Amino acid sequence: MRTIEDYRDIVGDGVISNIYRKARKLYGKHILEINSTYQGGGVAEMLSSFIHLMNDIGIETDWNILHGTPDFFEITKLFHNALQGKPANLTENKRHIYLQTNEEFYMYTHISHDLVIVHDPQPLPLIKFYKKGQPWVWRCHIDISNPDKNLWEFLKPFILRYDMAILSNEKYKKNDLPVEQKIIYPAIDPLSPKNIDLSDEVIEKTLRKFDVKTDKPLITQISRYDLWKDPEGVLEVFKLVKEKVDCRLILCGSMATDDPEGLKVYERIKRKANRLIRSGDIILLNAENNTLVNSLQRRSAVVVQKSIREGFGLTISEALWKETPVVASNVGGIPIQIIDGENGFLVDPYDIKDCANKVITLLQNPALAEDMGKKGKEMVRKNFLITRLVQDYLDMLSQMLL
Amino acid sequence: MRTIEDYRDIVGDGVISNIYRKARKLYGKHILEINSTYQGGGVAEMLSSFIHLMNDIGIETDWNILHGTPDFFEITKLFHNALQGKPANLTENKRHIYLQTNEEFYMYTHISHDLVIVHDPQPLPLIKFYKKGQPWVWRCHIDISNPDKNLWEFLKPFILRYDMAILSNEKYKKNDLPVEQKIIYPAIDPLSPKNIDLSDEVIEKTLRKFDVKTDKPLITQISRYDLWKDPEGVLEVFKLVKEKVDCRLILCGSMATDDPEGLKVYERIKRKANRLIRSGDIILLNAENNTLVNSLQRRSAVVVQKSIREGFGLTISEALWKETPVVASNVGGIPIQIIDGENGFLVDPYDIKDCANKVITLLQNPALAEDMGKKGKEMVRKNFLITRLVQDYLDMLSQMLL
Repeated sequence: MRTIEDYRDIVGDGVISNIYRKARKLYGKHILEINSTYQGGGVAEMLSSFIHLMNDIGIETDWNILHGTPDFFEITKLFHNALQGKPANLTENKRHIYLQTNEEFYMYTHISHDLVIVHDPQPLPLIKFYKKGQPWVWRCHIDISNPDKNLWEFLKPFILRYDMAILSNEKYKKNDLPVEQKIIYPAIDPLSPKNIDLSDEVIEKTLRKFDVKTDKPLITQISRYDLWKDPEGVLEVFKLVKEKVDCRLILCGSMATDDPEGLKVYERIKRKANRLIRSGDIILLNAENNTLVNSLQRRSAVVVQKSIREGFGLTISEALWKETPVVASNVGGIPIQIIDGENGFLVDPYDIKDCANKVITLLQNPALAEDMGKKGKEMVRKNFLITRLVQDYLDMLSQMLL
Repeated sequence: MRTIEDYRDIVGDGVISNIYRKARKLYGKHILEINSTYQGGGVAEMLSSFIHLMNDIGIETDWNILHGTPDFFEITKLFHNALQGKPANLTENKRHIYLQTNEEFYMYTHISHDLVIVHDPQPLPLIKFYKKGQPWVWRCHIDISNPDKNLWEFLKPFILRYDMAILSNEKYKKNDLPVEQKIIYPAIDPLSPKNIDLSDEVIEKTLRKFDVKTDKPLITQISRYDLWKDPEGVLEVFKLVKEKVDCRLILCGSMATDDPEGLKVYERIKRKANRLIRSGDIILLNAENNTLVNSLQRRSAVVVQKSIREGFGLTISEALWKETPVVASNVGGIPIQIIDGENGFLVDPYDIKDCANKVITLLQNPALAEDMGKKGKEMVRKNFLITRLVQDYLDMLSQMLL
């Protein structure tokens, strides 16, 4: 298992020493993280690395997962979409299942920690059931700037009980929320199986295993099968690109256990791209395999992220870390990671043509692509690695506990 | 949410008062239950009811679930089968994943409870990683009387660290295990959605929803799709029965998240019974729906449980509680629940013909079937309801903690 020392070569002694220094005053503190999925999706992945490192530096950090029935996850997926602006039909029954699942968790989860961090809407109302004996922080990973009004009014009373809300973007701050709002960018773990250096041999072997041919340049989007990721838009972009440069499109997405919509979207794409899938020009992958994602991000000519909404968009940092140039929508946290024209291209999420042109530019200019990839990696090293996240959380903990 | 008071009408004031009395000396004690699945399978179901009642009577009981990747669950399924006697190939890699998953859980799960109860083989080695500061009890729900030798030698050192092992059957006690071995029978919750009284209207509506026609007598086996449950044997039995009495066979099984083998078995049955499925005489259901199971158990003419091995076989008690007669294999905990010829029939698990004859006997003798069903219900009321389980655990806790 990884320790903070293992990151010295990547971030330098200064950062490592800084982390130990910040941790020193927090020794013996006992933190609890609660989210709703162990596997699948960026939050679970980040938590897994983060919690290991926190324990490694001496901050006892527990992880507890709110369990629910498929019903519950359908409701919270609806909430997720509604917080991002899609109108939702909030029935009495849905509220009931949502609250009951949280109350059941409360029944069998005793909390005596020094601070509790609750992730995203699924376990948000837990706070209502506990006799609060410590600060609670709501860590929201999604874009809540334009939520469905009814849902927001339903959820806000729970948020008001928290001592702090952590958001991923200055733009997500809410004027109507009189709770301290702090911005902490998420981060990737450069030593996780998804991001660690791979030999050419491993990359080739992995891609062969999943039948990904590398005889043409690869355009790749890595994302859950989700309407907000606009996989259908990616198909349109690809068709335009292919008129100029022969290439292959890879859509690679896993199904998270808390995302029942995924399968439906996947099947729609499959129908729509039927002809190009049969010809082998489009490859749909549905695998929960970090080495595959890592290999694709390393071997692709261009990574695309055509999201309509994006909590933060860590797939951008993942690709940039591998020196692969990225063309991505100018939404959510993506412009925080990409300076347009510097370390990648930003495009309007509805401008298929511009997106295609930028992909073509990169395919036709290997020197530009290489330069952007290099700058991308440095951007990530400075701002979006897990060691920076650890430092930000240590600062937050110091503020709340000392 | 249910409270212990809700069971008064079913078990009587004496039992309820006895539970409160046993709980009194344990107030303030803090118990932790650890298993590896939240949904699917009898253990999760029993825990869910049990933990609620323990908290209701004032014993703070937490529930924590060991999470793992699909790899992990394939390995522990293999362990499960090998503990029941199927030879296993125990590679170094399998041991490694098994231990690593447990070590990771340890990393982010702080334990400061007064007593820890660990269920089944999945989280068994956890105990190795903790600095033990309280009694630990291993609660084994499966038949470990003839385990694969290599696996047993690998697992035994972990069991030795426990203060007690709880088994479901006197026959499962191990001579070579110098740890206190206690027998506690599992139990069903008469107020859970799977067992609660249903009106005829709800039963009819539910069966219609799942396309189960009730124009002929129903023979039903409720079981995960698992080789140990011998669904293929049930097909053979059904063919013999159908020569004498026109009837329909229902196989109803859900897929547990920790049971990757289920799908394979399901598909094999589907092929084998293809013709009878198309004619509508066999219905394969694959649903995680308690009201469906409840309705089937209430509406069936005969419930069959043709298992080759059975940890305990709570589906027997479930069916008996609904006054439905049962023909079941004389294995595992089944003869504890059925007195042959009294409240059901026991058959040799390999004697297809005898099993078919007993089913035919019940189909042709409604008065006998009714009498056995009534006796079955009283057997369950006395011995296999959750209130009895609560009392046994309170006794165990008193022994360990007072």
